[in-house]
Amino acid sequence: MGANDPCELDLIDWIRSHSQDFPSSLVKSIGDDCAVFDPRGMSQLAVTTDMLLENVHFHRASVSPHFLGRKSLRVNLSDLAAVGASPYACLLSLGLPTELTQEYFQAFMKGFLEDGAHWKVPLMGGDLSRSDTVVVNVTVWGGFETGVPIWRSQAQDRDALVLIGDVGLSRLGLEILRGEDCTPLATMAHEHDLVDWAQDPFRAQCLKAHLLPRPLVETGIWLSENGVVNAMIDVSDGLCSDLLHMALASGLMAEIRVDHLPLPEKGWGEITALEAALDGGEDYALLAASSEKQLARLGSTYPSEFPPYRVIGHLSSGKPAVYLNRSGKREKYQPKGFDHFR
Amino acid sequence: MGANDPCELDLIDWIRSHSQDFPSSLVKSIGDDCAVFDPRGMSQLAVTTDMLLENVHFHRASVSPHFLGRKSLRVNLSDLAAVGASPYACLLSLGLPTELTQEYFQAFMKGFLEDGAHWKVPLMGGDLSRSDTVVVNVTVWGGFETGVPIWRSQAQDRDALVLIGDVGLSRLGLEILRGEDCTPLATMAHEHDLVDWAQDPFRAQCLKAHLLPRPLVETGIWLSENGVVNAMIDVSDGLCSDLLHMALASGLMAEIRVDHLPLPEKGWGEITALEAALDGGEDYALLAASSEKQLARLGSTYPSEFPPYRVIGHLSSGKPAVYLNRSGKREKYQPKGFDHFR
Repeated sequence: MGANDPCELDLIDWIRSHSQDFPSSLVKSIGDDCAVFDPRGMSQLAVTTDMLLENVHFHRASVSPHFLGRKSLRVNLSDLAAVGASPYACLLSLGLPTELTQEYFQAFMKGFLEDGAHWKVPLMGGDLSRSDTVVVNVTVWGGFETGVPIWRSQAQDRDALVLIGDVGLSRLGLEILRGEDCTPLATMAHEHDLVDWAQDPFRAQCLKAHLLPRPLVETGIWLSENGVVNAMIDVSDGLCSDLLHMALASGLMAEIRVDHLPLPEKGWGEITALEAALDGGEDYALLAASSEKQLARLGSTYPSEFPPYRVIGHLSSGKPAVYLNRSGKREKYQPKGFDHFR
Repeated sequence: MGANDPCELDLIDWIRSHSQDFPSSLVKSIGDDCAVFDPRGMSQLAVTTDMLLENVHFHRASVSPHFLGRKSLRVNLSDLAAVGASPYACLLSLGLPTELTQEYFQAFMKGFLEDGAHWKVPLMGGDLSRSDTVVVNVTVWGGFETGVPIWRSQAQDRDALVLIGDVGLSRLGLEILRGEDCTPLATMAHEHDLVDWAQDPFRAQCLKAHLLPRPLVETGIWLSENGVVNAMIDVSDGLCSDLLHMALASGLMAEIRVDHLPLPEKGWGEITALEAALDGGEDYALLAASSEKQLARLGSTYPSEFPPYRVIGHLSSGKPAVYLNRSGKREKYQPKGFDHFR
């Protein structure tokens, strides 16, 4: 840390004084060797962890610490949404270069804690370290009140493929960033500043999808509680990649009806709208599999305040793979979604 | 990854096929968006997270991936030990440079999983990413069967300070490494190879303390179950730093009797044995506070197979601070232990 050289305890104190109220089942939060809570109200506990690394997942020059704090929690919440769990609490490991100021730390934490308050997922503890680059690791966990966990492996023969949320916009947002002077983004603290900076609604939509994705937490919980899907996954690597994960885990063949896909209104740079939708990644949409009966129930009960759902294809028995159906022509498709080691 | 360019799914499959058996309460492990377990047998759950970063916490040239895998789990288990929790399961986030071979990944995972098997803490999920440097983040969960969590904040006026395990050796181990050609260490896979390489028993003891610290898991659980300590902390930043944490959290003044300290038999390089013991850090010893009555019970029931405990001072009412008592002369001491941002 640069300005005023705070020590670790000062930073931890700052976090503590800016934290929201904790649930009563939380026995001990920040400030001891472990956080401790009473899980007896929960029949099942879902846990997940995700890492965001500078120069791999983001560039400090084009993402403000405030937005980074938000996104690092949101991508984890999306994993809870994918199994239908209700967020309970989280842990944060944060590595920061010593040349960064207290302002950077506080802006990151404000973004993180504001989203934590919004989704009721208090920060229970973590680890602070100096680092050569910004390193963020978040662990979140959640429970199930009346619902049960939804797995990617439980899709059934003849299930419809149901997509909730947008695909492709985030990838186009990344493409927009690559062609711009992003200086103002490095210090931004409000979504409306991002919208102003974007200038037109399409660019704003893409940039928001990339920098401030909204995890479909409430939708995931509702789907779990209403038993209207057999399987689910969140779209983080890319629609076709994540569909292949579901197909492999469920032992089924998947087919996407390209004409049923919700495409971005246009592409950007060298990326077409279709490429972005199929393989873009970081969409944090939900991809589910529902039987005909479940689909009918979905049609009659799906809350209108949630993002609309769309049937984009189906699953059937056969060797696990992804097929694209374009106007009746069916072709096997090799997903080009994100793989860290390819 | 270099050799053979495996993709993320290959790496995850490798982990799955090398994992130990899972407890029956684990509903879902590696391979979905979240891991899920049934916590109903546990009245309280402890959770902690710790990050190890290349060039900050370790250097790739002097720590083999096998030893790094072990240490990254062990430092987290030490946090569970400090509250007296019994390890249940863990999550691992791992960032690896693409130029590293599959061998590096597999050696890291073997070390990690072998220790996981030893302490019965199965890996239930995580996140893999490419990275510019090696980044490790581990989250562990633990429960309490008959014991209760022990906090650093519950020390009482006139409690004795009880130290279990060694202090100083790890710091001297680091000093030894700094003066050596460490090439053989970068690929080592067995503790006995380290002992052979060290040549003499003192050097071996210091290097083991630094590279393969043993978390006092069983001792921590026993102390919690037998109610023989009021407060506890693990010594990771340095004996005096961590004692100051306990003093501040408990609102008490702490005094160390220097002549009662278990010192390394000698110093190394420019570090004296006393400096290493007081401020070395990464000891993963346990520092506890016990009343006179608890101390008597400790004396009559402490299992002989655990590392010996030693009374090294006491706590008393007064402004939180650490004092050193050398042959009757008492002086306030400012801990010089590790702080990432100082």
